[in-house]
Amino acid sequence: MGQYTAPLRDMQFVLHELLDVQTELAHLPVHAGLDTETIDQVLAEAGKFCEEVLFPLNQSGDQQGCSYSNGVVTTPVGFKAAYQDYIKAGWPALACDPEQGGQGLPVFVNNALYEMLNSANQAWTMYPGLSHGAYECLHAHGTPEHKKIYLPKLVAGVWTGTMCLTEPHCGTDLGLLRTKAEVQDDGSYRINGTKIFISSGEHDLAENIIHLVLARLPGAPAGTKGISLFVVPKFVPNAEGEIGERNGVSCASIEHKMGIHANATCVINLDNAHGWLVGEPHKGLNAMFVMMNAARLGVGMQGLGLTEVAYQNSLAYARQRLQMRALNGAKAPDKAADPIIVHPDVRRMLLTQKAYAEGGRAFAYWIALLIDKERSHQDEKVRAECAEWVALLTPIVKAFLTDNACEATNLGMQVLGGHGYISEWGVEQYVRDARIGTIYEGTNTIQSLDLLGRKVLGDMGAKLKKFGALVRDFIEQEGVKPEMQEFVNPLAELGDKVQKLTMEIGMKAMGDRDEVGAAATPYLRVVGHLIFAYFWARSARVALDKQATGDPFYQAKLVTARFYFAKLLPETAWQIRSARAGAKSLMELDEALF
Amino acid sequence: MGQYTAPLRDMQFVLHELLDVQTELAHLPVHAGLDTETIDQVLAEAGKFCEEVLFPLNQSGDQQGCSYSNGVVTTPVGFKAAYQDYIKAGWPALACDPEQGGQGLPVFVNNALYEMLNSANQAWTMYPGLSHGAYECLHAHGTPEHKKIYLPKLVAGVWTGTMCLTEPHCGTDLGLLRTKAEVQDDGSYRINGTKIFISSGEHDLAENIIHLVLARLPGAPAGTKGISLFVVPKFVPNAEGEIGERNGVSCASIEHKMGIHANATCVINLDNAHGWLVGEPHKGLNAMFVMMNAARLGVGMQGLGLTEVAYQNSLAYARQRLQMRALNGAKAPDKAADPIIVHPDVRRMLLTQKAYAEGGRAFAYWIALLIDKERSHQDEKVRAECAEWVALLTPIVKAFLTDNACEATNLGMQVLGGHGYISEWGVEQYVRDARIGTIYEGTNTIQSLDLLGRKVLGDMGAKLKKFGALVRDFIEQEGVKPEMQEFVNPLAELGDKVQKLTMEIGMKAMGDRDEVGAAATPYLRVVGHLIFAYFWARSARVALDKQATGDPFYQAKLVTARFYFAKLLPETAWQIRSARAGAKSLMELDEALF
Repeated sequence: MGQYTAPLRDMQFVLHELLDVQTELAHLPVHAGLDTETIDQVLAEAGKFCEEVLFPLNQSGDQQGCSYSNGVVTTPVGFKAAYQDYIKAGWPALACDPEQGGQGLPVFVNNALYEMLNSANQAWTMYPGLSHGAYECLHAHGTPEHKKIYLPKLVAGVWTGTMCLTEPHCGTDLGLLRTKAEVQDDGSYRINGTKIFISSGEHDLAENIIHLVLARLPGAPAGTKGISLFVVPKFVPNAEGEIGERNGVSCASIEHKMGIHANATCVINLDNAHGWLVGEPHKGLNAMFVMMNAARLGVGMQGLGLTEVAYQNSLAYARQRLQMRALNGAKAPDKAADPIIVHPDVRRMLLTQKAYAEGGRAFAYWIALLIDKERSHQDEKVRAECAEWVALLTPIVKAFLTDNACEATNLGMQVLGGHGYISEWGVEQYVRDARIGTIYEGTNTIQSLDLLGRKVLGDMGAKLKKFGALVRDFIEQEGVKPEMQEFVNPLAELGDKVQKLTMEIGMKAMGDRDEVGAAATPYLRVVGHLIFAYFWARSARVALDKQATGDPFYQAKLVTARFYFAKLLPETAWQIRSARAGAKSLMELDEALF
Repeated sequence: MGQYTAPLRDMQFVLHELLDVQTELAHLPVHAGLDTETIDQVLAEAGKFCEEVLFPLNQSGDQQGCSYSNGVVTTPVGFKAAYQDYIKAGWPALACDPEQGGQGLPVFVNNALYEMLNSANQAWTMYPGLSHGAYECLHAHGTPEHKKIYLPKLVAGVWTGTMCLTEPHCGTDLGLLRTKAEVQDDGSYRINGTKIFISSGEHDLAENIIHLVLARLPGAPAGTKGISLFVVPKFVPNAEGEIGERNGVSCASIEHKMGIHANATCVINLDNAHGWLVGEPHKGLNAMFVMMNAARLGVGMQGLGLTEVAYQNSLAYARQRLQMRALNGAKAPDKAADPIIVHPDVRRMLLTQKAYAEGGRAFAYWIALLIDKERSHQDEKVRAECAEWVALLTPIVKAFLTDNACEATNLGMQVLGGHGYISEWGVEQYVRDARIGTIYEGTNTIQSLDLLGRKVLGDMGAKLKKFGALVRDFIEQEGVKPEMQEFVNPLAELGDKVQKLTMEIGMKAMGDRDEVGAAATPYLRVVGHLIFAYFWARSARVALDKQATGDPFYQAKLVTARFYFAKLLPETAWQIRSARAGAKSLMELDEALF
């Protein structure tokens, strides 16, 4: 049951009308000649694959889950065939380096692909998703030999990848990790240890699995400065890149969990596994951060995808379910009752999902465009600036979009009432799948500390000020126009409040670092809303400009923008108060008295 | 895995120190002689049963679920034995009429029992929980003959009960229901139809199941004014109350659902089932509302129970899990890292659960005490007044406590990080079980409409003003005391805001009923916080008075009150803005443009 239609029209709106990627592409020589039509064709083709191949496997995949027997993981029926379709169509190569067999399309196209993959089937998407992260990491930090052996296979999707960080006693705190690597005479390493929570750690989709493993060298400094990164293939490839002998890496078990049942979450044992150093000794975390940042953006895309699919399904239900009469009198007097979409609170639930989906899409595609500019802009200064933007925005896209996804999927389920709670309709799965997003790849608390402690206060607000300038430019340009007052005024007000709040926390934090920890979570929500408010105001601008075309799409965009400012943005009133309330009420209670 | 300890100390605080039930009981002749010690002994005994018998079956019950075969439902291993223990100990009789074999204890004692039962095992508790609702309904509306046959069995727990309302095409909108009842020569009825989502509709715990079924008589008026209530036993009892022949009521299937796996959610077919009218023809909804109100309070108790158990489990984890150092420097330098309870955001998550559990306990026990006073107070005026209170507060206790439970259980899970998402630790089950609370027995949207539309605006705010007077009396008494300023000032401010907001919505609603629907959900959150703020301020008062005893319990209470006012109450800033933003942004979008 359930349904999914790729939201191509809104994707096109974001890319072409809001972000105007065509103008941006003109400054990215590697993408010269990439036109709007090609982008749209790729998205349409991807949408078809997601609708027709992946989505029908989502619910059955959840119900069957992965099975484990003697180290072998079997994915649900249909997963393997879908993966073969996926790699035959060349999707893993979409945004990869042409030198490695990639198609060299921009990251924003890949992000749009990933939004749709995640709407259709998050658990399945985690297999190719982690491979792409492994590709990024080896592309950035691998030796020429690693690149030659691994990248073409990852680009083609015939091999997949994983990230092996967590151990039973350490998740957030990687400084505690114990897995050991010892150098061999030939310069390779032997690795021993146990990793847990390894997504896609073992499966039957591909002929080889490339693990990127954090471990310690003998005599390494304690903590995070003594961690090195290794590439550990399930089957050791020979010099020609053909798979050879089985390595000492095995799956000891898979977890039973709340959601993403169809993705294998593995305990991985490394028994004298053969590995090769990636990057410099003891600097493994730096190298792994390439993959982790990609993964954090990827988790944001999961949140976006689930928000969209929950919206679509609850909307379909709200249109057909007849229950009660509209409060102002019957809307469908010929029927036994009105469709529940006439009720204000049902509309609140639908519009919240819609505003979070469309706002999230604008934000997530924008950060992808910034990554493209960071990598490929002709102007070095722009590249450096975009790198700063991406650093600032990554924790927000991860945490804000996944928090929103939990809210949106729960609202989607609520629209269905009791039918939402039973498995048949498929919506409760979205709630369970979305829930992991606030936890993995760094909990949302960690994201908020990264944002406030490192990215904002770490440079005395310099990066944040640049975003503030962008907002200010828009306000100055639009603030004088009567039709934009309703959007620009609350945006400007929130911008001022964020500035004041940041300074206030910065001052308090000088005396007490706990003030950062106490403010971080509400602070991230506030900054997330500032970004959403900026994009909703810009979207309203575009919609106002094009309203005369008569296309009702723009009317819907405008009304959704109004809803966002009326009902969702005011969350900041709470979060700002909560952030300002400081650390005292959190730290005062003695641990024993909880 | 997991743990549960009955929170007896806080229960005693609420009953004896905050609500001072002993003074109240002096005015309830039926409870004359019931002393503090007896109450505490009963609670301790109930706590033991919950800790030792029920809680150990919670996770295994979730994993096994109920199974269905040819109309027969089998509950998970251990459920039947636990139920036998439960009825042998006389727990179903606790608050029942002594004339029917009950023990005649107050409702507030029963509510405390139910909090613990739900903490320990919500799915199991739904079997006896619905029986108690059926008891209440038949006690209020049954004929003397019904009472004689059914009540002693329900009181003893040897038979259980259900509510059969929902049909495939109608849940919220009972006016649409189609199940038919036709009178027989002997004055009994034959009933035909299909009911869905019937909790505890079929099982193996008891020898008989008493269904309370809504159906239509021939020629009944359309809508809710043509619905009658019938008692339909699974096995038809003879005049001596012994079970006789199998009735035409059967379970066609059970649902697969997100949570409460161990409670059978049944499709119930009525095939010429033998039934007897309860109450007057066409006035079945009135009679059923006795059961529904009991059930709504019961769902609030589920929310409270899950909030408490999630808190306890995440607290235990936060104390033992070592990860990172405190931001102001190591707290446990002898260990590899500090326990995560040192981190401000972990404390935020724990204190939110704690404040919601303790605030919810005060609120829920208070409403139970009001029910006792409504039933048994010596002064008729007090009885009538308390009935009004209970009517006002029932939708709030249902919706506010279940929304809070969703928040609290999710925070509990978040404290555990990845370990929270896997089933092993048991916390993700609380999230799944809690999720149904906002849906069944009237969705929280319906509760909010009941509150704002019927209970508040329906009598021009008269009932609400009485609550306002209670708050004002407290403020006048305490507002002059310096040590109470931090609690009384925000409480007074919120009280004023609620008054203004109510008038504002009332004015707008005169012109547009959608304004009620648009404001109802945030309005309920605001009034819920007003109640919590009132009880947290009163709790602080008690704690301040007793601080000199040196009992650290009072210190914890005071700090938790401060946390509530600093971090949770400010949610009202958002909800008030959202309520005031009105209906326009919700209703503006054409249905086709969503």
